[in-house]
Amino acid sequence: MSASLTSLLAPGSIAIIGASPERTRIRGALLHLLRANGYAGRIYPINPSYPEIDGLRCYPDVAAVGGPVDLALVAIPAEAVLPALEQCAAAGIRNAVVISSGFAEDTAAAPDLQGRIAALARRTGMRICGPNAEGFYNEPARVTATFSPAVEDPAVGGPAVSSRRIGVVAQSGGIGFALYNRGRALGLSFSSIVSTGNEADLSAADFFRHMAEDPETDGVLLFIESIRDLPAFRAAARAAASAGKPVVAIKVGGTEAGSAAAASHTASMTGWQAGYEALFRQLGIGAASDLDEALSVMGALITNPPARGDRVAILTVSGGAGALAADSLSLAGLQVPALSAATQARIRDFIPSYGTARNPVDLTAQGAQGGGTLRAANLLLDDDDIDIVVIVTSLANPHRVTLDGTDLGALVAARRKPVLVHSYTLPSPLGLATMAGAGVAVLRSMGFLAAAARALARTGAAGSPPDEDRQDEGLPDEAVALLGTAGPLTEPAAKAVLAACGIETPPSRLVRDEAALDAAAEAVGYPLAAKVVSPGIAHKTEAGGVRLGIAGPDALREAYRGIRAAAARHAPDAAIEGVLLERMAPGGVEVIVSVLRDPAVGPVVTVGAGGTQAEIWRDTVHRIAPVDEGEAAAMLGELRSFPLLAGFRGAPPADAAALAHLVARLSRLAVASPRIAELELNPVIVHPEGRGCTIADALLVVASA
Amino acid sequence: MSASLTSLLAPGSIAIIGASPERTRIRGALLHLLRANGYAGRIYPINPSYPEIDGLRCYPDVAAVGGPVDLALVAIPAEAVLPALEQCAAAGIRNAVVISSGFAEDTAAAPDLQGRIAALARRTGMRICGPNAEGFYNEPARVTATFSPAVEDPAVGGPAVSSRRIGVVAQSGGIGFALYNRGRALGLSFSSIVSTGNEADLSAADFFRHMAEDPETDGVLLFIESIRDLPAFRAAARAAASAGKPVVAIKVGGTEAGSAAAASHTASMTGWQAGYEALFRQLGIGAASDLDEALSVMGALITNPPARGDRVAILTVSGGAGALAADSLSLAGLQVPALSAATQARIRDFIPSYGTARNPVDLTAQGAQGGGTLRAANLLLDDDDIDIVVIVTSLANPHRVTLDGTDLGALVAARRKPVLVHSYTLPSPLGLATMAGAGVAVLRSMGFLAAAARALARTGAAGSPPDEDRQDEGLPDEAVALLGTAGPLTEPAAKAVLAACGIETPPSRLVRDEAALDAAAEAVGYPLAAKVVSPGIAHKTEAGGVRLGIAGPDALREAYRGIRAAAARHAPDAAIEGVLLERMAPGGVEVIVSVLRDPAVGPVVTVGAGGTQAEIWRDTVHRIAPVDEGEAAAMLGELRSFPLLAGFRGAPPADAAALAHLVARLSRLAVASPRIAELELNPVIVHPEGRGCTIADALLVVASA
Repeated sequence: MSASLTSLLAPGSIAIIGASPERTRIRGALLHLLRANGYAGRIYPINPSYPEIDGLRCYPDVAAVGGPVDLALVAIPAEAVLPALEQCAAAGIRNAVVISSGFAEDTAAAPDLQGRIAALARRTGMRICGPNAEGFYNEPARVTATFSPAVEDPAVGGPAVSSRRIGVVAQSGGIGFALYNRGRALGLSFSSIVSTGNEADLSAADFFRHMAEDPETDGVLLFIESIRDLPAFRAAARAAASAGKPVVAIKVGGTEAGSAAAASHTASMTGWQAGYEALFRQLGIGAASDLDEALSVMGALITNPPARGDRVAILTVSGGAGALAADSLSLAGLQVPALSAATQARIRDFIPSYGTARNPVDLTAQGAQGGGTLRAANLLLDDDDIDIVVIVTSLANPHRVTLDGTDLGALVAARRKPVLVHSYTLPSPLGLATMAGAGVAVLRSMGFLAAAARALARTGAAGSPPDEDRQDEGLPDEAVALLGTAGPLTEPAAKAVLAACGIETPPSRLVRDEAALDAAAEAVGYPLAAKVVSPGIAHKTEAGGVRLGIAGPDALREAYRGIRAAAARHAPDAAIEGVLLERMAPGGVEVIVSVLRDPAVGPVVTVGAGGTQAEIWRDTVHRIAPVDEGEAAAMLGELRSFPLLAGFRGAPPADAAALAHLVARLSRLAVASPRIAELELNPVIVHPEGRGCTIADALLVVASA
Repeated sequence: MSASLTSLLAPGSIAIIGASPERTRIRGALLHLLRANGYAGRIYPINPSYPEIDGLRCYPDVAAVGGPVDLALVAIPAEAVLPALEQCAAAGIRNAVVISSGFAEDTAAAPDLQGRIAALARRTGMRICGPNAEGFYNEPARVTATFSPAVEDPAVGGPAVSSRRIGVVAQSGGIGFALYNRGRALGLSFSSIVSTGNEADLSAADFFRHMAEDPETDGVLLFIESIRDLPAFRAAARAAASAGKPVVAIKVGGTEAGSAAAASHTASMTGWQAGYEALFRQLGIGAASDLDEALSVMGALITNPPARGDRVAILTVSGGAGALAADSLSLAGLQVPALSAATQARIRDFIPSYGTARNPVDLTAQGAQGGGTLRAANLLLDDDDIDIVVIVTSLANPHRVTLDGTDLGALVAARRKPVLVHSYTLPSPLGLATMAGAGVAVLRSMGFLAAAARALARTGAAGSPPDEDRQDEGLPDEAVALLGTAGPLTEPAAKAVLAACGIETPPSRLVRDEAALDAAAEAVGYPLAAKVVSPGIAHKTEAGGVRLGIAGPDALREAYRGIRAAAARHAPDAAIEGVLLERMAPGGVEVIVSVLRDPAVGPVVTVGAGGTQAEIWRDTVHRIAPVDEGEAAAMLGELRSFPLLAGFRGAPPADAAALAHLVARLSRLAVASPRIAELELNPVIVHPEGRGCTIADALLVVASA
């Protein structure tokens, strides 16, 4: 399918199935708003009950129109939708928006109604948005294909700060149009706002892809409950990145409560939040958790060049506001470094002695007068030690603005570095108009200022996303044979799979009979660990089934009997396959490495602090698989416990290279074999540099073939 | 000093020193704004250059006024301020606001100018606000004693949601008046906004106390760079709590960058953020980091009863908005539990089948019509499993509001439980007016909604603050004698102080000579630890000066020599006092316990995860000392690593009671003895229940006597 949805979103003619003169009904509001907002194409109301509606000829059915129709708007009862779509298809209509509810989101709906819409789309090639969608609004083309009250008066809004337009793709119509409504008030401009509803045919990824390629769209805002077509979503993100269009996403369902809501709202399957975070990050998509935050970030991204780093200079006329901004920016992970002595001296030249030039720079009201703020901003734009300039000022005065709009506009238009403006007071209409004239989207709160600065710094720092489409080798046949049927494998079975893939595990032997102990121990070598092996005992330690540091034959025999006895007590009905003897690894840093297949975003690779306290500290870093060695090393660097790997309190540095190699290898295996549902190595013991690491335990859950 | 500052903040007559007809100058703006905003008292312009200003008789000096004057406003050059204040004092003026800059905040100022103002206040009893203040604005009394543009048109603002008034005390005039400006737009009402400036005489605590007792003030917003008078601040907070007035504080200077700004702004000494956080929490003061967040929280607190718990029900007409609210509330630490089957059934009675009654409750637009939202709200107000009701709706429509204002007003006025309203779209003027009429402060963003709900839950959960004024026993004379002069003590010296205070430490002996080893070891008992003792070696482990688990005489001799040799290599010039032999403690959970004297907020007691990885995990909980055993136990419960103490993975529970006793004891010692600058015990090994804990190492830094 071509990515362009232009004939749907900018149709030359529209049929409204079930059109009505009653504006309080959705079908009436659609017709009214379409006309009221100046749609220039042809409109065909379809309703056998009326000869005409508001002066427009009304047709009994779409066949009666006689001419080509680009888009059908469908807002009739659910049971009538499918026949209407069949008629549209027969009449050659290629696009439809189904606003009607009563499909997969409805517990009382006919079970396969939505599936039949999808089948119709596949069979006829018709592109269908919805059902249970709130429609769309295309501002440049003046297409109001929605009943949202947010577009009842689209002229309302703040003065436009930029002609660059934002497209919105939302899996909730309420939120999609709220983004439009709030964004207009912030002075932002929009291309299309699309509510995707239940996504029987067209998914959020399809509209995202369209906007990535649409010349009317300069940035994309997403509201995501669940990604239904991951490869298409990734392709859309790549297209947006290569077009230089910023993308910001709000993802809901991150908490148990949120997931419940998302599942019941559009019957979507909500994924694991860590996976989404990793996905967005790898695709260069900014994340936000609040509508105004998302809009503030987008406003900053769309009007500024990326930052070359994270060092922020703050120019203010209020010491208190400057201190608050410095706190907010620092807490968001940005640096607010003291300015160089040279820059401070140049600033002190024109500010009074009760100001300060350190950073935050308190120009004072007196120092800001006569262009002092922009003079200081110019110095900082020339300063190689500063990446982002933040102006914290008061735009409340209804009669005058301290910042010269023309000079500020010239400085912003030069795009040397990002320049952000926050007003700690509520901006007056004059203040906003002056800033809009200068191309500045005023940041309304300290929190949004910090989020915008962080997004600019991250955009500048982002590398290219990994090539997730490259072909990896599949599992070796020998390994595939070992996977067997679906379900968890025992530790030796999991390790056999690893070994078959060429991943080294410690020397070991499975002992089923006490008589075989000494020969097995000799093959393995002391000191050794002994562990119960049973499909019925998942938590070996809690079952008394693990003994470590066994130094010789007597201790081994005692351990063997103890493990057998404990296992029998703990799980009398479990089949005991035997006791695994394994060479003890020398000391090192304990980590977890895992790959879990997320139903929404695919295999997610995780590294974390390992050992018994792992679940206390929850120190983990995630990526979507595959990652290469470099990315795996970057993951290690993001761990809070990275100092333990780097050589802590005089200990030698650990073999991070070997660990990164293991992480990358595992991530490729997971991509190559969908049958790996969960693979967790905990602990992996990372030895000093040059000595590799040891996989001390392994858990593998196999998915159905 | 009496807490009431009524004669300053609501004066019957005001002299403006240096009054001017030029409104663009501060001295002219003061006179103009005072009159323009309808001040009803007498105004005496003081300026020998004019016989009258704008029709008001002008006096050459305050003595010439002849009658009583309640307040002098001073906005003349710094060097003229002191003589002017002397004249005011001579004329019997009891209150002054000094707006002039050029004092402690100014590097070019005469060094003791500010100190002489403070001395004048002490000598004459005159109460002085400032210098370097932006003045104050008392809305009910119509006193505009400031030049802030924010009060140029105080009638501007949203419709008032409540007649309850908020007082603002700010160590930054810009922020103080921005809070007023933004708060008015949110429909909040104010009593006085006070900018405290350099606080030569009156401090933020004085104004805070006044507002706690002022009948015109129902809640207090604080903007704090540094607390200069801690006992007065605590007393003010207690007064506010006993008057049932909510208090919300924004504290800046929490980061290095922020601290630098605060220090240079009003020459204040900024304390350690953890100490402030602990102080605010113990005093029942809410904390915020953003102006609109602080105002949103205050708006919610001032219009709602406290919540009895943290279980929130969400009513929405947009599934997406409901999911986003659920995420935001959950991330803020609140619960969004599934509603009971009974409540769900009652809600399903009146919502369509495509809605959901679980929580968030998606009423759908259809289900919300005809009072559905308030019907559901009433069910939840009766539901013992829900503590807070949140309505997430759209108030954008300029022509109609789904919620009935009269019914909502009655429901809110009954104050059964907190009811919060958030509009995911921008509210229309009609929407805001309807909500204001119902007494509802609409929360403008999801983040502020979550902050408000959290504050309501915390207010309901807050106990009474500890009685920090109670007299604790001082250190025993024997312990005081051991403190010696200022500086760090060696480990045995620190432990001797603890022992003199009756706090048990492990059996130990200091050995200065190898010949004494065996006798000392016999007295201590094997297994033992050996540690170097030297004032020149602070980090014993890094110096190779610690050996653990020594089992007998041979190992001991080897360890003794090894420690001596390592210490000589590591610090050849350090005086070695000897080697401390100490009985090894049995196993347990390692924690840190410390008390650090913060220059701003006093002794801060800390518990945290201990041992070598403490600085990796930074798992700490703080309180202002003293704490009792119950509060200390609550601190342990807040540790991320609390599961380790509770009995982790089958380990026995640790003796948390003994640990809480130690924490409480140490906190009382620190309060009783200002000479304890830092006292850190790390690790304290907490043994299984009933077996106490062992102080394995101790660090004590003594402050000057």
